[in-house]
Parts: sequence; C-alpha cells; structure tokens
Amino acid sequence: MAIQKFTDFELIDVITSGDAEEIAALDVVELEGWVKTNRDNGSIGFVEFNDGTYFKNIQLVYDNNCKSHDIIVKAGTGCAIRVVGKVKLTPGAKQPFEIVVDECEIEGEVAEDYPLQKKRHSFEFLREIAHVRPRANTFQAVYRVRSVLSMAIHEFFNQRGFVYVHTPLITTNDGEGAGNVFDVTTHDTKDPFEFYGRKVNLTVTGQLHVEPFALAFRNVYTFGPAFRAEHSNTVRHASEFWMIEPEMAFCDLNGNMQIIEDCVKFCINYVIASCPEEMKFFNTMIDNTLMDRLTHVLNSEFKRMDYTDGIKILQEAVKNGHKFENNNIEWGMDLQSEHEKYLTEEVVKGPLFLINYPKEIKAFYMRVNDDNKTVAACDLLVPGVGELVGGSQREERYEILKQKMEALGNAEELSWYLDTRRFGGCRHSGFGIGFDRLIMYVTGVGNIRDTQPYPRTSGSIKY
Amino acid sequence: MAIQKFTDFELIDVITSGDAEEIAALDVVELEGWVKTNRDNGSIGFVEFNDGTYFKNIQLVYDNNCKSHDIIVKAGTGCAIRVVGKVKLTPGAKQPFEIVVDECEIEGEVAEDYPLQKKRHSFEFLREIAHVRPRANTFQAVYRVRSVLSMAIHEFFNQRGFVYVHTPLITTNDGEGAGNVFDVTTHDTKDPFEFYGRKVNLTVTGQLHVEPFALAFRNVYTFGPAFRAEHSNTVRHASEFWMIEPEMAFCDLNGNMQIIEDCVKFCINYVIASCPEEMKFFNTMIDNTLMDRLTHVLNSEFKRMDYTDGIKILQEAVKNGHKFENNNIEWGMDLQSEHEKYLTEEVVKGPLFLINYPKEIKAFYMRVNDDNKTVAACDLLVPGVGELVGGSQREERYEILKQKMEALGNAEELSWYLDTRRFGGCRHSGFGIGFDRLIMYVTGVGNIRDTQPYPRTSGSIKY
Repeated sequence: MAIQKFTDFELIDVITSGDAEEIAALDVVELEGWVKTNRDNGSIGFVEFNDGTYFKNIQLVYDNNCKSHDIIVKAGTGCAIRVVGKVKLTPGAKQPFEIVVDECEIEGEVAEDYPLQKKRHSFEFLREIAHVRPRANTFQAVYRVRSVLSMAIHEFFNQRGFVYVHTPLITTNDGEGAGNVFDVTTHDTKDPFEFYGRKVNLTVTGQLHVEPFALAFRNVYTFGPAFRAEHSNTVRHASEFWMIEPEMAFCDLNGNMQIIEDCVKFCINYVIASCPEEMKFFNTMIDNTLMDRLTHVLNSEFKRMDYTDGIKILQEAVKNGHKFENNNIEWGMDLQSEHEKYLTEEVVKGPLFLINYPKEIKAFYMRVNDDNKTVAACDLLVPGVGELVGGSQREERYEILKQKMEALGNAEELSWYLDTRRFGGCRHSGFGIGFDRLIMYVTGVGNIRDTQPYPRTSGSIKY
Repeated sequence: MAIQKFTDFELIDVITSGDAEEIAALDVVELEGWVKTNRDNGSIGFVEFNDGTYFKNIQLVYDNNCKSHDIIVKAGTGCAIRVVGKVKLTPGAKQPFEIVVDECEIEGEVAEDYPLQKKRHSFEFLREIAHVRPRANTFQAVYRVRSVLSMAIHEFFNQRGFVYVHTPLITTNDGEGAGNVFDVTTHDTKDPFEFYGRKVNLTVTGQLHVEPFALAFRNVYTFGPAFRAEHSNTVRHASEFWMIEPEMAFCDLNGNMQIIEDCVKFCINYVIASCPEEMKFFNTMIDNTLMDRLTHVLNSEFKRMDYTDGIKILQEAVKNGHKFENNNIEWGMDLQSEHEKYLTEEVVKGPLFLINYPKEIKAFYMRVNDDNKTVAACDLLVPGVGELVGGSQREERYEILKQKMEALGNAEELSWYLDTRRFGGCRHSGFGIGFDRLIMYVTGVGNIRDTQPYPRTSGSIKY
C-alpha cells in the first residue's frame, strides 16, 4: 500500500469522521512536524508530536523494531521531524489512535538554548520570546482563536452584504481629536511634511473615512490596524491594535444595537464551534468561569439602560453603602470600569447597553438627542470585562454637526466629512470593536500583550 | 397587506429566485437609497434608484397618482429618499420589474455643488473627490470587487487550514533592506526613539514576522497593510498598500508554485461568480479583453521556466530583431516589465513561473540552489500585467543564512529571525501578492489610485 501523506488535522479528521471505510483504508502514513516531548524507557519510546494544524498532539510510539531507532530516540523537544509509521487505533485509550513509527528523519535540529521546555513558563518569560511562543500551548490556542475570530467577523458581515473597506492608516486627521497620535516621517529627514506635502500621522480610527462608503454601499465595515501613542501601561492598552468599525446607512440607534448583539453572539458561537479543544483549554488553564460566562451571554437578551438611569442606580448603591474607588457619582461623569462592571454584573447580571450619554463626554460626530443634553450613543457592557463595544447614531444634520466641529476647530480640516451631510446624507449609525480586547474576552486571557503576535506597547519593541 | 422592507439586493434576490410563491407575495415594498437620475415628462416620471447593495439600479415610476408627487419630482441626483410603492413585474422589458411609487420622503437633500452628475467624469476628476467617488458606477464596481476579493483570499486560506496572523506594522526592521521606509515618531517630538526606546518604522513586509508562525502552525498567512516611501510616480506604486503573505512549513518551491496557481485561480473564479454585473461592466467600460484574459488564465496550466532559459530566449529574440527599450540582455540582470511581458505574452502565451533567479538580485532569505549562483525564487508573470506574485523557498540552513545576513549587516538586528533556523527549522516557502495590483489585474483598472479607497501616493493626501 502506498504511503499516505497527512497533516495532523487531516488524519484526525479521518479518524474522528466515523467513516468506517476511510478509517479502514488508513495504513502507513507520513507526517511532518515537531517534537513536543520524547520519553524512552529503553524498550519503548513515546513522542508527543504536533504539526500545528490541530491543537492536540499525536502520540508516536517507537521500539527497537523502528528502522530509525537511533535517530528518533535523540529527537528532543522542538526538533522538526518527518516520520513514516502505521496507524494503530486505540479505542478506549486516552487518545483514539497512535502511530507506530517505522522511519524517522530529522528535518531540523534544535539548539541547546531552545527556550521552550516541558515545564510551564510564565507569560512574562514568553513575552520575551515572541518568535518562539506561538509553539507554546497557550499561544497555539490564542493565535488559532485570533485567526478564527477574524474569519467570524468577515463571515458575519459578508453574509449580511456589508462591503469591506480598507481605510487608510496614514492620514491627516486624528479622528476624535483625542490626541496622542504617531507622526509619520520619511526616513532620517524627520519631516512629517516632506512626503505628502502635509503633516501626516497614523490613524486612530477608520470611522470618518468609512462613513462616506456607507453613503454609497449602505452597509460597510473596516477591519484593520489603528494606533494610539498612549503611554498607559495597563493590561488593556496597546499602541497598535486591530479595530472593527461597521457603519450602516438608514440605521438608527436601535438598529445599531441589534447588529452589535447579533455580531457578538455570532462571534462567540463561531469560536466555540470552531475551536472546541482550544476553548476547553482556556476554560481549564486560564479562566474556569469562561464557558459559563460566554454561554450566559449567548442565552441573554441584551438589556438597554439610559445613562441617566445608570447614574441614579449607582448613586442609590452608594447611598446603600456600596464602596467604589470613586464614590463621587454625578450626572455628566465618564463612568469608570468599576461602575460599568457594577451595572452589568450586579444590577442586570448580563450584557447591557448603556445609552444616551451626556454629549460633553462623547465624540463630536454622535447625534444630539432632542433633550439637547445627551447623544444617541450606546456602549455595550459585559460581565467580567466592562465595555466591549462602543457605538452611536451619527449626527446627520449639517448645521448641528458644523457648529460642533467649528467649536472643536476641525470643520475646515474635515470639510470633506461635513460634505457627506450635504450630499444626500441620511440617518446612519455605527460602532467599533477593539479586536484584541474581543480576543481577551472570548479566551479569558488577561493581558492584551498575550493576544497579539508581536505586541506593541510603550517602551517595548524587540521584533 | 403589510409593507415589506427590503434592500435592493434582497428585493432583486427574491425576483430573480424563480420562487413563484415568494414573487407572488411581493406587493407594497419600502426602499431607502439614493437617486441616480430623475426624469419627468409631465405625466410620468422615472427615477434610477440605488441603495448600494446591488450594482444595477432599480427603476421607480411615478405619475400624478403618487401621493408625494410634488416631493419625488424634485428629488435630484444624489438625494437620499425613502419610497413606498408597488412591485410591478415587467417581463420582457429591459428590467425585470419596476416600483410604482405611492409615497416618497426626502431623507437627505443634495447641495447644488454635488460633484457627481449624469455625465461621465474623468478618473482624474474623481480622484479629487475620494469621499464621493464610491457612488460613481466604476467605483461602486471596484470597491465591491475589492471587498469580494478580500473575502476570496480569506476563504481560500481558511479552507486549507491556514492560520491568519496579524504581523505588526510598527517595527524595527526594514525587511529586505530595500530602504525608503517611513519613520514613526511621537507627535511633535519628531523623535523616532522616544516611544519604544528604539528607532521604529512602518513595515515593508510581514514575511520575517510571519515565518516563526509557520514553524508553529505549519501553514499561515498575513493580509494587511505595508508601506514604501518611494517617490515613484507610476500607475503601479502607492506608498500604502495591502499585501498577502502566506508561509508554509515543509513546503518546497514546487509546492509553493502549486499553491500560488490554486490561489490565483480561486480568486478569479470567486470574483467572476460573485460579481457578474461588475465584471460585465469592467469588460464593457474599462477593458474589453478582460474576461478573455481571465478565462484564459483559468484554463491554463501555469508554465515554469528557468530564469537562465528566459535570458537565452530574450537574447535570441534580440538577435532575431526584436526591439526592447533595454536590448542589453545579460545573465544576472533584473528583468524589466517589457521582458517579463514578452516571455508571458509572446513566448508561452499564458501564465508563467520564472524560477531560479541569480542570487544577487533577490532577497537574502531565499534558498541558495546547488549551483551556488541562483536561488529558489519564483515570480508569477501573467499576460497583460507582468509580475503578479513573487515567492521563494526560504534558506533554512543556519550557516548559509547567517553568512548572507552578516554580509548584509542585519544578522545581529535580526538574531531572532536567525533563531528560527536553530530551533527546529525546516524547509519552508512562501510568497507575496500585492493586493491592490491583484485588483488592477482582475478589474482591468489601469491605475492603483483607482483601486484604493483613499490612495496614498507621493505628494498627495487630502483625507
């Protein structure tokens, strides 16, 4: 019988398919991948083998009948090998099958200073070896989920006919005017004007650029990098991160919230269905409340609460003796994470849209409500994390927007943005999801540095 | 009967579904979108209407029975409207149905200086109004294809188990050392060292960063922005563009070429199947050889030719009287576009992999062949364009790579990259596709500035 070449995933797919004919046809197979561990007791040896296409390892077994016994016995952790062996089904055992190795070839040796050993490494240590940590269990799981979650985002919006727009990263505007942007200069001249004839910086949001596309395609979204030169050294801040920013024409705040709820549930369902082994791993090793928390969100109807009511509830809580770090609750304040968590975890005990915030604490492009005090904003708060998504209905009325922008001083700079309100504008809404924070949320990983392939945080860049 | 709300796409989908029951159930519908044109001959009026969810317009008809006759008659080009009307099937007519308008509401007026009129505008003019051009026919088609082609890329790699990796954009290395990078500084300090403690620039390629992931997941890809501060003012150069960079462990040059061929064919098929109206438009309005060219590629087996043989053929052509701009054909030269086009268009008359280039003209990470003169590179050349994809098998041998990098002076800076050759490295290959150029190729659009939402080219930045 000819040797069949497989990836781990393909082989496991056949064996777990339940297709008796296909399984029976398995005989001698060839695999290529890496040694996770290798232990040999003299008469029999076991290699935990993995080629990265499936989360769980495959067990290789070798004894003195193995033609390459001298070779495989020396293949240490991290070594790249090619093996040929016979599939042996092991019903009832911990693993449904093993490979009895007949031949083994070393494809790549591993140096003595290979930093990943069998013992458990700290996240801090692994952050120092970003080029090796993808091979550690936790990061095999995290980066797989990162990939699957990206696909979930694209499928969600594609199925609904949204057009994906690549908004530019080099730009002349700084979005909400929140400051702390990175300038872009040509090499060595240090002149941010030189290349484009204007000062340019890295984008903080694609929203302003994507809105004109919503007026052409109705439903659009961006999914790409954004940057903030914030020196905040927290577990939730990175200076480079990925953002998802959908924008929908003819859509009001209620429609916006419906799409946010659908999107979050779709993503959670998608990851649970696509990454069962990884999710089991996270629930065991990272956060054993994870699956309960996610399942609870899936089964919840997201509640909606006015900011003004939220403030009253928080004030009441303080009156009844609840202690926040900041107990000074006043209408008009920007809520801190502890306040958001209290509302979502203690009050509604589930996902909560907090809506209609004071206009002073929200971005200029949000639609002013009839009370002229609040704007049609919605932040999605979820238990365990606090804010997960932020969105709003946009101000579509030219005069009102123009006044706000003139007060802010960006009406001239952003005259093209104002144009969209004169050229067949319409009510429209959109939201933003920080993709890296979404990964933290669905994996339970506690530090944004452990969700990104090569994290970019203040004071740290090795790669 | 209740009013049914539809997007254009949803309504057309029902009518072209052939489902007699669903079609018969259509009665009074509500649509929201924009007026493309509006002409009224006194007794009857016609609006070409589009909400951006489908390429072709829907025809609205109104007469004096329309409750909102005074309103709709004044709705000019670009105006956002909401209409309620009755679906009237028109079998045999140019359009399979029209909407007889009963009510109309203006959602957004259009100012007198609205720059898109019924007449045809030049690409140069439209480039000056990047925030409005998505509503022009050509750009409705281009940006839709851009979105669909992005999804094609993700589906192709996801179906094959590739892990999507977000490689960083802010980095300390300049990839192939080709120079002309953009520096990144914190605002106003103009200090590229300040934020990260090291000089940083915008990435020119994700390849070096993604290779370590191939050694963890076997098959991986990036799809994200890259930057070159080149002052080249050509139709094919932009300073910000999107790149697709797959990397496969245990894959040699032949395997690499197979995946490139599969990927290119998959993308073409996907776009033709998903965007029939847009492709018809391009073939009629932009390039009437387009569909023939693409179909020819789909039906071709991609040929493979050694660079050395290519040089001989070009020398022979010159000897036989063929005139190139550069007639000085010598082994070791970097081929110009005219030479590449000659080989793919005149010699093999189809897609061609030119392989095994002189090592001096290719990047340091490409695998040196046994002749010690060439590297295992493959450039895919296609008729009409020239180079579409560039790839290679990577140098996996530590000592050889180290020597090349030491000669280049980046061995210390990129010690982490060299590590991958000591830590269970293996033969591996990868390639790069310039996404914006791929769009030019599948749409026939001749200028990269017309494929990007907000093009970034030297000396030009308005948004």
